[in-house]
Amino acid sequence: MFDIQEIRNQFSILDREVNGKPLVYLDNAATSQKPDSVLEVCHAYYTELNANVHRGIHTLSQLATEEMELSRKKLQRFINAEHDFEVIFTKGTTEGLNLIAYILTQKLQKDDEIIISYLEHHSNIVPWQLLCERTGAKLRVIPIDENGVLQLDYLDQFLSEKTKVVSVNQVSNALGIVNPVEEIIAKTRKNSDAYIVIDGAQSAPHFTIDVQKLDCDFFVFSGHKMYAPMGTGVLYGKREILEALPPFHGGGEMIATCSFDGTTYAGLPFKYEAGTPNVGGNIALGAAVDFMNKVGRENIQNHENALLEYAQRQLLEIEGIKIYGEKAKRTGVVSFNLEGVGISSDVGMILDKMGVAVRTGHHCTQPIMDFFNIAGTVRASFAVYNTFAEIDLLVEGVHKAKKMLG
Amino acid sequence: MFDIQEIRNQFSILDREVNGKPLVYLDNAATSQKPDSVLEVCHAYYTELNANVHRGIHTLSQLATEEMELSRKKLQRFINAEHDFEVIFTKGTTEGLNLIAYILTQKLQKDDEIIISYLEHHSNIVPWQLLCERTGAKLRVIPIDENGVLQLDYLDQFLSEKTKVVSVNQVSNALGIVNPVEEIIAKTRKNSDAYIVIDGAQSAPHFTIDVQKLDCDFFVFSGHKMYAPMGTGVLYGKREILEALPPFHGGGEMIATCSFDGTTYAGLPFKYEAGTPNVGGNIALGAAVDFMNKVGRENIQNHENALLEYAQRQLLEIEGIKIYGEKAKRTGVVSFNLEGVGISSDVGMILDKMGVAVRTGHHCTQPIMDFFNIAGTVRASFAVYNTFAEIDLLVEGVHKAKKMLG
Repeated sequence: MFDIQEIRNQFSILDREVNGKPLVYLDNAATSQKPDSVLEVCHAYYTELNANVHRGIHTLSQLATEEMELSRKKLQRFINAEHDFEVIFTKGTTEGLNLIAYILTQKLQKDDEIIISYLEHHSNIVPWQLLCERTGAKLRVIPIDENGVLQLDYLDQFLSEKTKVVSVNQVSNALGIVNPVEEIIAKTRKNSDAYIVIDGAQSAPHFTIDVQKLDCDFFVFSGHKMYAPMGTGVLYGKREILEALPPFHGGGEMIATCSFDGTTYAGLPFKYEAGTPNVGGNIALGAAVDFMNKVGRENIQNHENALLEYAQRQLLEIEGIKIYGEKAKRTGVVSFNLEGVGISSDVGMILDKMGVAVRTGHHCTQPIMDFFNIAGTVRASFAVYNTFAEIDLLVEGVHKAKKMLG
Repeated sequence: MFDIQEIRNQFSILDREVNGKPLVYLDNAATSQKPDSVLEVCHAYYTELNANVHRGIHTLSQLATEEMELSRKKLQRFINAEHDFEVIFTKGTTEGLNLIAYILTQKLQKDDEIIISYLEHHSNIVPWQLLCERTGAKLRVIPIDENGVLQLDYLDQFLSEKTKVVSVNQVSNALGIVNPVEEIIAKTRKNSDAYIVIDGAQSAPHFTIDVQKLDCDFFVFSGHKMYAPMGTGVLYGKREILEALPPFHGGGEMIATCSFDGTTYAGLPFKYEAGTPNVGGNIALGAAVDFMNKVGRENIQNHENALLEYAQRQLLEIEGIKIYGEKAKRTGVVSFNLEGVGISSDVGMILDKMGVAVRTGHHCTQPIMDFFNIAGTVRASFAVYNTFAEIDLLVEGVHKAKKMLG
């Protein structure tokens, strides 16, 4: 049974007020709130277990290591990776994408090509631009149509033996569009030997992920968008690929032997986890997976889709509203503007006065904004604890904003 | 008044038992425990404030941003940086050092030289070895004498117009040796134009740091070794240097404008803070600074030095003990072996049975171990909450280990 009130009771922050009104938190695509169970695991770590991992033989260090490795196994199952050592702990999606772009440097040459899409977050654009600067490779960008849908016939044209990387998100953070990554991966495999990178920052919180079925080479996501503390995330990479590529950061834990004559590197996952990991955060990320499993990932997805359906229907009754991105292909996000209201942040401020937290602006996707010739949008994004009553408040607020600003 | 019991009362974890004995935590150079005040700030963040920063106009996002920027100012004062934007939040020392090594890539050419010392942690060795691989530069290593003291006449020989980087730690993690960084910096400035990097991972928890007085170009340290949560740290860089160097990670927050034709970068500190920061952790790092200031940084240093003095005197009464590193130049760490006891971990395990947590092994400093021709040492390292009674238990345990293993 999916009991929304029972779920909400697990999030202390939802009891707070903002500007004298109950908090309506609809900025989940930026970061989700964290259930008490996750916060308790984190707190218990620091009051009972805290120690540096792996290198210690004392009891606390052993316990902390066990707990962190247990969490790694939870994450392995969360994305159905073949091996637990294919799960690399990072501080978030951005670090994961940059790590990949750095370790691929030697694999690219002048005039090689990297394919991304118009729907990418800056974190899946700029690392590749920097890689192009380092190597002389060129960026090719799959365009979108006016509904925000990727034009995959361009992918067919772009793919060639020059293609070295294809990196796309599974869900667009700005519009909520779900991209056909299965099709993109199939086309890429057929027509190139490119490394395939999937940015799962906006899909892992909402979908069931199966990296083996997807057959991607890399899959990255953030903990903080899926009910875990900030400063956590995962880079999945296929074993044979991670084993063959060079390390990224040098330091403790990632070496096998270190001397001034030459250093050899540790096996996976440690090769890519130089330095003291965020042990407490990584353990709490496992607790976030427990939370999601307990609620049921299908339940989460169904509830969020119902919220989107409901929000979309009500918002469309407002005259002059424009919602970006094709409805049938979206999840978790409604991104819109009001005709005659130039600045999305004005709408956001009126909503904030009513306790409704939404994101406004370019959502770190300036190319999408340029495509639609707008400065930004108002974005409401949903999590499992959001309610239909909260959508009513959002809609009421947008009506009010239209009246005040229109 | 320095009241050790009052300080200990602030660390819940110190109440726990290990193997039926009260925990004696002497593994502080690996990571320190966290006071309740820091954990409460972190918890309060997640139950009252949690939001993504900077890009949001809603109330929670504004509050989270304010708190994180307030923390940045605390860190600025902590190291006496000239500007708050010279404080870059990282996930720890290892990331800080790797970041510097990556952004300096274009500044080095074949046969340029990087000077480090024999006393460095792997995290201040391997990033430079990787930089040498990228550029063809060469590593030069200041040797130590049998007391673990840097032989600075070699620095004089090494320094030339070829020297592009000098990177040394202020305190050795393996031996506790305090290096004469003022002298190293003065010599370097006089005889080269090298970038000067100070690894403060083992000094920031113990000393007062003044980066302006030091006149280093970069200073890096970890939060988790100075009473803050894991996954936190600081990279300090001089304004004009950080402004002139290229970015490291690409992504959200670090751009001014992003398009497929070209991207421009944000100003400091955001240029080096791509992606969602560890907001809760960074705020808690500020609370750790508050804790240290409240206790008094001089009080911390004096207490830890008294503990070292006491430990050293008692341990030296054990026949056949060898303590590494010149006593007069050490702080916070005693690193030793027992004659006839081949494996440091055996000593560590006996101590653990008595509830005493120490670190054993190579401490991520294999070159030092190779120099002394040993596999590892037993390392006891101190924090402000350690007591003389705990040292007595350590010494009792070492006596016992000698009897059992000798």
